[in-house]
Amino acid sequence: MSDENTFQPVYLKDRNFTESGYERQLKQSSLANVAVRSNYNALSLKENKGNIALEIQDDLGMPVNYVRIKALEDSIRKDIISDKNSLHRAITPLLILVQICALLPVQGIRGQNTSYLVFNWFSWIMSYSIILVCSSLLMILLIVFNLYRNGLTYEITGDLVFYGGTLINYMVFIHLAREWPKVMEKWELMEREMKQYGYPPNMAFKIKMLTCIIMLLSIIEHLASILTGVLKAIHCSPDGLDIFRLYILTSLETVFTFIDYSFVVAIILKFFNCLYSFAWNFMDLLIIVLACALTDKFKQLNQKLDSVRGKVLPSMYWRKSRETYNVLASLTHDFDEFLSPLILLSFGHNLYFICLQLLNSLKPMHSSWEALCFAFLFTYLVGRTCVVSLYVASINDQSKKPKTVLFSVPAECYGVEVERFLMQVTSDELSFTGCNFFSVTRTFMLTVGRKIIFILNAFLYK
Amino acid sequence: MSDENTFQPVYLKDRNFTESGYERQLKQSSLANVAVRSNYNALSLKENKGNIALEIQDDLGMPVNYVRIKALEDSIRKDIISDKNSLHRAITPLLILVQICALLPVQGIRGQNTSYLVFNWFSWIMSYSIILVCSSLLMILLIVFNLYRNGLTYEITGDLVFYGGTLINYMVFIHLAREWPKVMEKWELMEREMKQYGYPPNMAFKIKMLTCIIMLLSIIEHLASILTGVLKAIHCSPDGLDIFRLYILTSLETVFTFIDYSFVVAIILKFFNCLYSFAWNFMDLLIIVLACALTDKFKQLNQKLDSVRGKVLPSMYWRKSRETYNVLASLTHDFDEFLSPLILLSFGHNLYFICLQLLNSLKPMHSSWEALCFAFLFTYLVGRTCVVSLYVASINDQSKKPKTVLFSVPAECYGVEVERFLMQVTSDELSFTGCNFFSVTRTFMLTVGRKIIFILNAFLYK
Amino acid sequence: MSDENTFQPVYLKDRNFTESGYERQLKQSSLANVAVRSNYNALSLKENKGNIALEIQDDLGMPVNYVRIKALEDSIRKDIISDKNSLHRAITPLLILVQICALLPVQGIRGQNTSYLVFNWFSWIMSYSIILVCSSLLMILLIVFNLYRNGLTYEITGDLVFYGGTLINYMVFIHLAREWPKVMEKWELMEREMKQYGYPPNMAFKIKMLTCIIMLLSIIEHLASILTGVLKAIHCSPDGLDIFRLYILTSLETVFTFIDYSFVVAIILKFFNCLYSFAWNFMDLLIIVLACALTDKFKQLNQKLDSVRGKVLPSMYWRKSRETYNVLASLTHDFDEFLSPLILLSFGHNLYFICLQLLNSLKPMHSSWEALCFAFLFTYLVGRTCVVSLYVASINDQSKKPKTVLFSVPAECYGVEVERFLMQVTSDELSFTGCNFFSVTRTFMLTVGRKIIFILNAFLYK
Amino acid sequence: MSDENTFQPVYLKDRNFTESGYERQLKQSSLANVAVRSNYNALSLKENKGNIALEIQDDLGMPVNYVRIKALEDSIRKDIISDKNSLHRAITPLLILVQICALLPVQGIRGQNTSYLVFNWFSWIMSYSIILVCSSLLMILLIVFNLYRNGLTYEITGDLVFYGGTLINYMVFIHLAREWPKVMEKWELMEREMKQYGYPPNMAFKIKMLTCIIMLLSIIEHLASILTGVLKAIHCSPDGLDIFRLYILTSLETVFTFIDYSFVVAIILKFFNCLYSFAWNFMDLLIIVLACALTDKFKQLNQKLDSVRGKVLPSMYWRKSRETYNVLASLTHDFDEFLSPLILLSFGHNLYFICLQLLNSLKPMHSSWEALCFAFLFTYLVGRTCVVSLYVASINDQSKKPKTVLFSVPAECYGVEVERFLMQVTSDELSFTGCNFFSVTRTFMLTVGRKIIFILNAFLYK
Repeated sequence: MSDENTFQPVYLKDRNFTESGYERQLKQSSLANVAVRSNYNALSLKENKGNIALEIQDDLGMPVNYVRIKALEDSIRKDIISDKNSLHRAITPLLILVQICALLPVQGIRGQNTSYLVFNWFSWIMSYSIILVCSSLLMILLIVFNLYRNGLTYEITGDLVFYGGTLINYMVFIHLAREWPKVMEKWELMEREMKQYGYPPNMAFKIKMLTCIIMLLSIIEHLASILTGVLKAIHCSPDGLDIFRLYILTSLETVFTFIDYSFVVAIILKFFNCLYSFAWNFMDLLIIVLACALTDKFKQLNQKLDSVRGKVLPSMYWRKSRETYNVLASLTHDFDEFLSPLILLSFGHNLYFICLQLLNSLKPMHSSWEALCFAFLFTYLVGRTCVVSLYVASINDQSKKPKTVLFSVPAECYGVEVERFLMQVTSDELSFTGCNFFSVTRTFMLTVGRKIIFILNAFLYK
Repeated sequence: MSDENTFQPVYLKDRNFTESGYERQLKQSSLANVAVRSNYNALSLKENKGNIALEIQDDLGMPVNYVRIKALEDSIRKDIISDKNSLHRAITPLLILVQICALLPVQGIRGQNTSYLVFNWFSWIMSYSIILVCSSLLMILLIVFNLYRNGLTYEITGDLVFYGGTLINYMVFIHLAREWPKVMEKWELMEREMKQYGYPPNMAFKIKMLTCIIMLLSIIEHLASILTGVLKAIHCSPDGLDIFRLYILTSLETVFTFIDYSFVVAIILKFFNCLYSFAWNFMDLLIIVLACALTDKFKQLNQKLDSVRGKVLPSMYWRKSRETYNVLASLTHDFDEFLSPLILLSFGHNLYFICLQLLNSLKPMHSSWEALCFAFLFTYLVGRTCVVSLYVASINDQSKKPKTVLFSVPAECYGVEVERFLMQVTSDELSFTGCNFFSVTRTFMLTVGRKIIFILNAFLYK
Repeated sequence: MSDENTFQPVYLKDRNFTESGYERQLKQSSLANVAVRSNYNALSLKENKGNIALEIQDDLGMPVNYVRIKALEDSIRKDIISDKNSLHRAITPLLILVQICALLPVQGIRGQNTSYLVFNWFSWIMSYSIILVCSSLLMILLIVFNLYRNGLTYEITGDLVFYGGTLINYMVFIHLAREWPKVMEKWELMEREMKQYGYPPNMAFKIKMLTCIIMLLSIIEHLASILTGVLKAIHCSPDGLDIFRLYILTSLETVFTFIDYSFVVAIILKFFNCLYSFAWNFMDLLIIVLACALTDKFKQLNQKLDSVRGKVLPSMYWRKSRETYNVLASLTHDFDEFLSPLILLSFGHNLYFICLQLLNSLKPMHSSWEALCFAFLFTYLVGRTCVVSLYVASINDQSKKPKTVLFSVPAECYGVEVERFLMQVTSDELSFTGCNFFSVTRTFMLTVGRKIIFILNAFLYK
Repeated sequence: MSDENTFQPVYLKDRNFTESGYERQLKQSSLANVAVRSNYNALSLKENKGNIALEIQDDLGMPVNYVRIKALEDSIRKDIISDKNSLHRAITPLLILVQICALLPVQGIRGQNTSYLVFNWFSWIMSYSIILVCSSLLMILLIVFNLYRNGLTYEITGDLVFYGGTLINYMVFIHLAREWPKVMEKWELMEREMKQYGYPPNMAFKIKMLTCIIMLLSIIEHLASILTGVLKAIHCSPDGLDIFRLYILTSLETVFTFIDYSFVVAIILKFFNCLYSFAWNFMDLLIIVLACALTDKFKQLNQKLDSVRGKVLPSMYWRKSRETYNVLASLTHDFDEFLSPLILLSFGHNLYFICLQLLNSLKPMHSSWEALCFAFLFTYLVGRTCVVSLYVASINDQSKKPKTVLFSVPAECYGVEVERFLMQVTSDELSFTGCNFFSVTRTFMLTVGRKIIFILNAFLYK
């Protein structure tokens, strides 16, 4: 009775064989014995309390083999097929792209449900990640050595921040990969808890669209940055002899001052560089998609609440709504803890490169192509930062919405549940934070925006 | 019973034929059948629930033609004459002026009540708006082409912001026009709900006064800016030959570098320019007037609450007061959502032009007339921004006032209603916001003011 | 019954002839008739409701002459002698000094109690104020005329701010004088309400000390500023011929470019100037003293609450404490409304002159005397600003103190009264504000301090 | 009954002879008489009320000698041995090092429990402190005299701040020493109150580790700063003659311009200087250690609360948890009051020296050794400031954690105790503050960090 409102029991409740995808499977399985089911529940309860007794007498005094039941349970769970608009399945296409860049080295992203997700230090995807981490580490060492020889210059600082950031990025993603199965499981539990709200109908489509748009812009961005490099290379050698080699030598100066020029090495390094650039975009994309998914869940709750505005409803209704809100609030805290290093990194990186681009803009540009490239790169960078901020800030906006409905609850059905709900909405500040240093809200955006405009102005009219 | 405290039912209650203006009309209409009235209420309730059954058996088993009743109801509603101090009628003179500038293309602003308000894409006023939108769009294209040829200069940036802002302004006003009927209807419902508080006695007069003052200053501002232009023109051609032509050529340089000088085109463009300038003033004026109207409503509630400070009153009194406050709070949220793009635009525009004026002030001035013009323009701009801020901030100030009274409620009559009221007053942050990026309060004013003073100082003693 | 907790009835309760000073007077008066007293209370109640009936039948059917009773009541009230540590009597010495500077032109500051306080437009002290207002107005006109002729210079800006500020200062003090009787009456009511807490024992002494210290420093400041002027004059005329005349001509250049030099005029103007300088100090002093008096009252309450920390007490105890807190909170709001223009002016003035002094410090100094004068003037200015801020901020600090005690209330006696008390302490932000633009708390001080240090640094190492 | 929840009675409860260390002692003492114990409790209660009656009739009418009982009680208390992970005993090694630097001149830091702690103006450790205070005072006088002769230079300002800060530091530590016994006693009471939570298992080890790390880095820092000085000295005299003397003359220029160079004086001054430098490190270390100890206590509570998340528990459980939280909250307030001057000093000092180091970095460096020294000094300074901030901010973070658990309390067992607990967690802002001017939270860190990065950028790319 008392456990009905907790987080873990949700998982138990949802195993009560009412899941649509599950019932289909039920007929195939031989599990129909009621006695087994009651014991099975008792076992789960015991597990919750942490004292697993492997052989317990059941009601009829028969010993029950819990190891087998556990295996049975797992096999049942594995058979559940998540809805195609559930986050786990909707995010799969994005994760495949992410893993091409060797980020988020977690296994089982194509599984039917979250129980297939596993993090393993000795997997192929992990070793792929490790190679890229080592490569970036090597680059940093070369840059530091360069720094020691030539002193601090703009280019070296920029390179150091890029490769250093990349290294941190990959390491953060490895950390995320370790947490991913747990976090996705929590999300799935929340989705089951909110089953009566249904799945957001176009979640899968929305994530695909977001991925396509960001990917397209990233490719253009990457081409533009290559073009800028090539144009610079042409400008330096007006005779235009072997532009590719010149471009490589300019852009990978750090490496080719140590070793001789080699086409194969150049191609490999350029490929790695390309992955690194995309990694930054995937970082922002992942934040956007997860924030968007969470916001949609809040929106579903808000729509339902809005539809009962001013209506007299039993206390139980408000209790259920409050519990749903609390599940979401609790998930927001979990996600915040999970994502906050990524958010801190993303904001730090974006703001740094906005400032760097502004500094670069002061150098004379050799052609209108270069100016156009710069304009695109800068606009894209600022735009992406804004989009990330707005999507993340919308969590906070949506989490405050129930307030209006709760203030309009008629006096007849105002009670302790409404009061608790209101208390939680007004006093629990739900939002993603950058490691608790700042919380991403609309007000925060203005602060950041003002600073960028301030710097922009200072540079434009210098 | 349960619906009495919701927002929509207010509208139903107020149709209970107790409206003074309405009762006068009642005698002229033939609607006296009680049966019809009961069905009529049933219909409204059904409408609320969204499932309109067109043919339902009434109490006597007779089918009722709801289409006819609906038409009847609408015709009755059309006959209600709003009080002359109601916002809809008080704001009419201002809206007429606004529509002369082709802003807010909504029909029925002179109607007896808000039910006449209609937004129609194919109306004369709308086509007038479209012409001005297209004209500003054309100007922007010419400026961008100019920008491409001549690069970024002060004048071009200023022009771009002016015409770009104007375009956004017109588009925001078209959006407002679409929302206007709904928002004004909500306001009218609130006015009926607060009927026992009466209409603010001098609302119509106050709006007229505000309009006159701002209009007068706008005209002076426009003349001053023309004078500045003419003085510049004179200065450029000391022989004083055809000053008008010179002035036009200087101020509309963007256009007349593409086409030959033509007196007719010049006059038309100047007229459009004039409308655009006034549009900015009307934007601020509309914000002021709506903020002022809302503040007055809060003041009425506060005055009544102040008069019962420390008195022992039944719980029902506090419930009624809380519900009234909640209606106002809910209206503030609706108005905020409605007006926030306008507020963001207004603050952005005003702050940008304050900074631009400061930059302009650094150029040498050729005569004391020019200095005087500049002083007036600058003072007016700063003053207008302050007035807008103060009027908007007063909503927040007034919404916090009930707190003192509620803390002084004697222990004898302190109950759940007072607690809820207090909870709402302390935790619901009521104010207009700029798209949630900032909320306009007195503290916000200081922040903005400090920044302007900082810039002012930096420029004055440079 | 119900009125016992309101603000006005306190006044009635306190007339219940238990006042110690009052009882002494009671024997001299012939008022002993019980019937008169009951009618007298009825009258007061009626007055409260605002419908004064001059001739009402009493219990015995006899008409009662309320005009005579009213007169009687007033005469009784006049005979009450306030405690010498009550604010009204403790602040008298300061007010006498303030009135020497023609500030706060209110009559009756030496009266036995607050009922003697009267504001009268046609009093001697008022006409004295008017003379000084007109004089400053004249100075401003001369400065504006000067400004028109010579353009904007440092000296003229400084003078304009000084005389403009002085004018506003005098006008604000006239406004304060009009409110003073009402505000002091409210304070006296609060003092009677808190009679069981006693008067802060050394209030009179503390105010005298504060006045002496600030006065002494002001005199030194004024002498230092005169010395600076004289030193400048000496520097300008190395032959040292008629230093006084030179000093006057330098410091009152504004006047003596219009009229010829005259010793009498110079002396009068210097005297007025002297009064104006002291006026600024009195402004700060008044804020300090009133903030200090209010803080002491909060401290008395906090001490009492601290002494019962963790004790089980009846609900009535918490109710009484909460009501006392509410009276203080309500008084803080009243005082805030009353003092906020003064606070805004004080902070604006002090910050402006700190910045001006910093600018002046950049000019080369001719002697170590001048450097010493500057150091003293600057330190005094900064110190005074800090002291004002700290005293005002302590109101906010003290008003938050009951929180700790209330959180420690044992569960046995926790009830609705403790909850309300806690609610008020945590959600009512009590502090003096600068017209609501900023509230003076310790955090605010840091913001201001940081800005000053920032400017200081910028200037020191320029 | 009523006193059970107050702070002081905790002490009484814990004397109920259930302390493990205490019971061991119990057998050695002859105190077994129940009558004595009941009187003994009565005495303690009386003491609490502040009216100590030395001769009171006991239950049997016998006079009781309370002076003897008091002495007995004290002797019992002295015999209690605190747990080795209790703060008092865990911090002992650190305090011994602190006292070597003549800071915190309190006696009894090696005592078995806090009752041995005594502050005495006439102790050896105190006189040692006084010598160092006088020495720094002398240095300041010499610097001021120097300042008068040579005017304001970078070096003199730096020296003035260093020695001035040191003087304040020592005086603050003397103040802390006076408060130390009281504060540690409060801490011990809290530890007994939270006995069922146990002592943080590795507290003693953690403090030792922190001390070692900071000490090691401080020694490196000091050597680096000496190295910098020596390198400068070598650079000034390329012939390398008597480098030590040159170094002393350069670094103690202030002194040796007044007196002739003497080896003994130089050694003594250098030793004092060394102590002063370490004093700054100990200041930061003490803040870290105390913040860390407090955070651990909050963590213990949070872990226990987390383990019951969503469980149905009796009201008494929540009451006990709330009371424990309240004891911690109350201790945080006491510690804040105790430590806030130190925190203000620490932040002021660290920020000033970060800015100074940045300024120094602009001077040309003569060798890569100097650059390395600078890099280390700067990194250490910034790092130490960050670590202090993070440790202090974690108090605030931990104090907010119970919120999530309280929002998840099932409706079945939600009651007034949970509500009060939630109220306290959401509305009581627990953190250490710098004399209330700022509270050290993660958000505050960002503000400070942003400012430092801003200055850093401004200097790096100047």
